[in-house]
Amino acid sequence: MSKRQSRERSATRNLGGGWIFGRHAVLSALSNPRRYCRKLLVTPAMAAELFEGHNAFPLPQGLSPEILSRDEIERILARGAVHQGIALQADPLPDIDLETACMPQDGSRSVVAVLDQVTDPQNVGAILRSAAAFGARAVITTERNAPPPAGGLAKAASGALEHVPYVRVVNLSRALEQLARMGYWRLGLDGTAPETLADADTTGHIALVFGGEGSGLRHLTAKNCDFLVRLPMSEQVESLNVSNAAAVSLYELARSHS
Amino acid sequence: MSKRQSRERSATRNLGGGWIFGRHAVLSALSNPRRYCRKLLVTPAMAAELFEGHNAFPLPQGLSPEILSRDEIERILARGAVHQGIALQADPLPDIDLETACMPQDGSRSVVAVLDQVTDPQNVGAILRSAAAFGARAVITTERNAPPPAGGLAKAASGALEHVPYVRVVNLSRALEQLARMGYWRLGLDGTAPETLADADTTGHIALVFGGEGSGLRHLTAKNCDFLVRLPMSEQVESLNVSNAAAVSLYELARSHS
Repeated sequence: MSKRQSRERSATRNLGGGWIFGRHAVLSALSNPRRYCRKLLVTPAMAAELFEGHNAFPLPQGLSPEILSRDEIERILARGAVHQGIALQADPLPDIDLETACMPQDGSRSVVAVLDQVTDPQNVGAILRSAAAFGARAVITTERNAPPPAGGLAKAASGALEHVPYVRVVNLSRALEQLARMGYWRLGLDGTAPETLADADTTGHIALVFGGEGSGLRHLTAKNCDFLVRLPMSEQVESLNVSNAAAVSLYELARSHS
Repeated sequence: MSKRQSRERSATRNLGGGWIFGRHAVLSALSNPRRYCRKLLVTPAMAAELFEGHNAFPLPQGLSPEILSRDEIERILARGAVHQGIALQADPLPDIDLETACMPQDGSRSVVAVLDQVTDPQNVGAILRSAAAFGARAVITTERNAPPPAGGLAKAASGALEHVPYVRVVNLSRALEQLARMGYWRLGLDGTAPETLADADTTGHIALVFGGEGSGLRHLTAKNCDFLVRLPMSEQVESLNVSNAAAVSLYELARSHS
């Protein structure tokens, strides 16, 4: 676990509920009726802009902003949190199980992203944001070795955490089996695969499976995929950043079936 | 400037030359004959793996690794640098001017990425990596408000900094004019544009222009583009992370002209 991640986890843990910070992330959480919001911290400037006057942003009942300086907010959050003058302490969204999140619905095509040991909160947050952008149903990861749905992840998701279920499973192999039973084809992204995603047959429900930042797809995870595909790229680099690979893959699936 | 960035800048400045860290980034720099390498720090384990025995990675003449503990390396770098046990102090690559980097060559199509106030080193590094992956010629940014070509940027670029020119210009408007004179169409990415990138006519040489993380494309920069395009996305999010938007756009141009 990197320093940044361990800072983030302890910040989440210390305070009994997760902190969400950054303008987009906080306003999206405040607009989500399924969120229980405990505490809202804002700088005077942010309070004036967002929560005062005729066009004040509507707040959940019983919640009123506490006005603090930028430094005071930073001291309460993890050090280095880019909070933009606004932070919200909120309970995590209710857990959602794999089947509820992913079961295909009549007549529409489902795409989900499965992350195998993607540990960087910024990457996972950006993947949630891309999933929301390109119409993926859910982002699935393991309970261990994945960042909690708050802090830097929520910031990088820029509100997408309120829209795209973030499903954390105990056992990824079992989750991949369940997805198969629900009718998904499991496509593992692997730079050494002969076929590109664009050339593959991607009709039907698709679970895109991505490996971690350093090591790529693990052997066992690759074995649990129906087939492996790659993104076309020059030989100058071995791979893309995982959130970039996910964005391109989700885009490709949305594009080729639109 | 965020805490992370200011930490990174001071680390670069303190030591007279930029530090490059992380396995891919350092090995790529060591393999680049245009790099002047000053100091190589490695952990005992990394030294044994990379620089000892029959298959030792070849080092530039006169350079031998200094063996330090992980913590000792971290103390020399910026705090929180994810160095993976290897760090290289190297001079920046020689500056390259816009025309040398971008002038289209006979018979082949050129694509470049122009960044207007993208300030996060991880985003810029990931964009360099995507540029290398999808065959873009160069990444262009401003001297001010852009991260230096070392540290977290080099790490996120994962070696791409050695392959893709990172051109820093004083005046972005003038650079966009120069690109037009070299024969580039300047396409600004803007979520409110009516046309998608995939639907736009993207024949010829293309400069893709991206705005900063928070604010998107500035008015003046948008005015200096020939046209604006968007990526198709759902209404749940306003935009993608800028490195994700760049990856998707560079992929789309490579795909649609392959």
